[in-house]
Amino acid sequence: MPLMDILTDILKIQSTSGDESAIKDFLLNQIRIRQTSWKVQPEIYHGPQVHDCLLLKFGKPRGAVFAHIDTIGFMTRYQNQIVPIGGPDVEDSVSVVGQDRLGPIKCNITENEGQLTHDFPRQIAPGTRLSFEQDIQISEKFIQAAYLDNRLGVYNALKLCETLENGWVVFSTYEEHGGGSVPALLNFIQKESPISFGLISDITWVTDGVQHHDGVVISIRDKHIPRKIFLDKILELASDSKIPFQLEIEDAGSSDGREVQFSPYFIDWCFIGAPEDNVHSPKEKVSLFDLNAMIEMYRYLMAHL
Amino acid sequence: MPLMDILTDILKIQSTSGDESAIKDFLLNQIRIRQTSWKVQPEIYHGPQVHDCLLLKFGKPRGAVFAHIDTIGFMTRYQNQIVPIGGPDVEDSVSVVGQDRLGPIKCNITENEGQLTHDFPRQIAPGTRLSFEQDIQISEKFIQAAYLDNRLGVYNALKLCETLENGWVVFSTYEEHGGGSVPALLNFIQKESPISFGLISDITWVTDGVQHHDGVVISIRDKHIPRKIFLDKILELASDSKIPFQLEIEDAGSSDGREVQFSPYFIDWCFIGAPEDNVHSPKEKVSLFDLNAMIEMYRYLMAHL
Amino acid sequence: MPLMDILTDILKIQSTSGDESAIKDFLLNQIRIRQTSWKVQPEIYHGPQVHDCLLLKFGKPRGAVFAHIDTIGFMTRYQNQIVPIGGPDVEDSVSVVGQDRLGPIKCNITENEGQLTHDFPRQIAPGTRLSFEQDIQISEKFIQAAYLDNRLGVYNALKLCETLENGWVVFSTYEEHGGGSVPALLNFIQKESPISFGLISDITWVTDGVQHHDGVVISIRDKHIPRKIFLDKILELASDSKIPFQLEIEDAGSSDGREVQFSPYFIDWCFIGAPEDNVHSPKEKVSLFDLNAMIEMYRYLMAHL
Repeated sequence: MPLMDILTDILKIQSTSGDESAIKDFLLNQIRIRQTSWKVQPEIYHGPQVHDCLLLKFGKPRGAVFAHIDTIGFMTRYQNQIVPIGGPDVEDSVSVVGQDRLGPIKCNITENEGQLTHDFPRQIAPGTRLSFEQDIQISEKFIQAAYLDNRLGVYNALKLCETLENGWVVFSTYEEHGGGSVPALLNFIQKESPISFGLISDITWVTDGVQHHDGVVISIRDKHIPRKIFLDKILELASDSKIPFQLEIEDAGSSDGREVQFSPYFIDWCFIGAPEDNVHSPKEKVSLFDLNAMIEMYRYLMAHL
Repeated sequence: MPLMDILTDILKIQSTSGDESAIKDFLLNQIRIRQTSWKVQPEIYHGPQVHDCLLLKFGKPRGAVFAHIDTIGFMTRYQNQIVPIGGPDVEDSVSVVGQDRLGPIKCNITENEGQLTHDFPRQIAPGTRLSFEQDIQISEKFIQAAYLDNRLGVYNALKLCETLENGWVVFSTYEEHGGGSVPALLNFIQKESPISFGLISDITWVTDGVQHHDGVVISIRDKHIPRKIFLDKILELASDSKIPFQLEIEDAGSSDGREVQFSPYFIDWCFIGAPEDNVHSPKEKVSLFDLNAMIEMYRYLMAHL
Repeated sequence: MPLMDILTDILKIQSTSGDESAIKDFLLNQIRIRQTSWKVQPEIYHGPQVHDCLLLKFGKPRGAVFAHIDTIGFMTRYQNQIVPIGGPDVEDSVSVVGQDRLGPIKCNITENEGQLTHDFPRQIAPGTRLSFEQDIQISEKFIQAAYLDNRLGVYNALKLCETLENGWVVFSTYEEHGGGSVPALLNFIQKESPISFGLISDITWVTDGVQHHDGVVISIRDKHIPRKIFLDKILELASDSKIPFQLEIEDAGSSDGREVQFSPYFIDWCFIGAPEDNVHSPKEKVSLFDLNAMIEMYRYLMAHL
């Protein structure tokens, strides 16, 4: 099946932080089917030793690409109460889906004075995970759906696999809810085949200075600041590449890069990804031009860094 | 002496975060006295190499139980000012005790517009640690005292030692004030005899959905979310056990589990403990039924996980 | 050149968090020039394996001294917007300097309803780092300048090198903006020549209980609490030394000590440094008496701990 179909499929798989086994199994299966057409055959690491993460090692890695496979969402509390997983945007009301022992669930979640509640006619088993109902819209210039953050980052990582010769492609968990898998992934990687840099394949925000159709975003900083020496090298390569890119300078927001920064290893990192509108809502929207630039930029950088 | 007497003793030992050497020495001494009656003789790790922590290794561990031995409290600042250690609850006024070079201290701490002050007639040496005055009340159905959080978790861990065949029992420090010993404990454990899971033997909160006498609490989440695959396994075993338990789903609160989650190892974790009323006050109150269910649940889970 | 001249030099070198390569190169060069006069010749560790950090190992270390070489500052965003690096104090307006591809920059930054903007007549390249314009004033009793925090901590570490027989002197990065180099430094140190304690050579605050000219500050706690057993040992040695010191007890503020506390190693730590007025402003002010006490105290403690 064409890779764009994989994108549609993974957009439909529920995987709130802490519950990533289904998306991991799907990706593992697709990778096994597709890898025969890849330029280099990776070693694949999965299973209880790496929880619900998935790592592919191509050739002799100098760096790694991290794409988180979890999403934001909701968990049922007591009565009809809801607590968030990560930071979902619930303006007035959003439609969600899930499942408990009594069957499938589809209902609305509304916010009232900071309290989230659902309107499902029966009680939902406490601790049930709920995700935005998916509605994928692809036009000439845009893709719109829930969970483009970070299904597009995952898609980008899979595209990279087709041609990657040297490097880790790492599918991480828990990014949307405080993190926690990257420290263990880095420990695993540094023992197996160590790296000196990581690129964060994730989706960022349209802002004052970041617009649709202006290319992939290279983030000079969010809440955290990558090392200038490494940024300079990235920016020089990006200029050489002629691939369209724009710069982000923010004082908020974070990513798996945070955990690379605070790790016990001297590993450089940089966030590189397409920007989206309607962040963490069911209608995240990304320019296909920017997505394409993202895919090309990763291919270029992983070959040249 | 009966174990319930140990509980009374450890409730009286002061051990605010960072000052756990007295409680550690007491526990070490009691363990040495009592271990002859235990089913399996553990290896005991203590001393400067593990600071004020204490680790017992029984048989061939698959997992570990973590019980923190520090408590919340107060520290004197300049003049009659007080700064908190952890998050103590000072409604109007609380009675505290301590000691500095000039002798024993007993006074009241009151809060006024966010500022804590004491009323001891002389200046207390700056940097002196103060703890709630202890008042233990045991009735037919309840125990009430300061520091049930986490003396009951420690008590539970000691009860577990009597029958435990395989597993680590770990007494941690600093939990109430930001943590910091679990990362080092995990490094120590993973080098000595690695684990794939940790249970957090600690006390949680009575809330909307968590009531006295409904059994031990298995926490589906607090601020952090354990991995669903592991939770499912715990819940299945808990159901099989017939031991009374209830579920917690909160979006706040944290425990030593946080540091297992963020560690460089793929280690699952779950918080399991009795709930209390009057959290972090001198009148913490726990159902003896729930405490008993906690003790039984740890025995069952550590044998079956 | 006399060491006081080095202080003047390093006060003038720009090195906001993430951009510490220039100050590191300067220090490395000065160390190579000066080390011939030192009592013990250290092993020097630098280069890509430790990013922009710098480590000196003297003899057989029992402990380490950490001095961060980064500073607070600013980064240009889009249009004339500015985002802070670390927590700079911009009362009404401050004068800053920097450089982008079009040349040197000197302008004012002002704050308006939480938004920082600059008044440079042309656009500054987004992502450009700006630092306080330096104005060093040395009187009989005080030194006043931008970035005494932590150029004085670095100066203290360099003074210590002259006589140090056993110990690590570590120049860390990123302290002002969330940290992140100490975990990697500790991993490096514990593999190379492990330590059981760290002293944080940094500058703290004049407060209710901490005054100019009362000696170097030994911090009983800031946001984080060092282990009492270690503090007691430090305080006993400090008393024996007859060097003037004062105690700090705060519930806010942090340092590289935070990352020692949360590290995977059982390493004690304590913050010891002179206090300053006008924190994080261009007019930080430190008593020369306190600075001298700091230098003497480090010499004494590193010999006796």
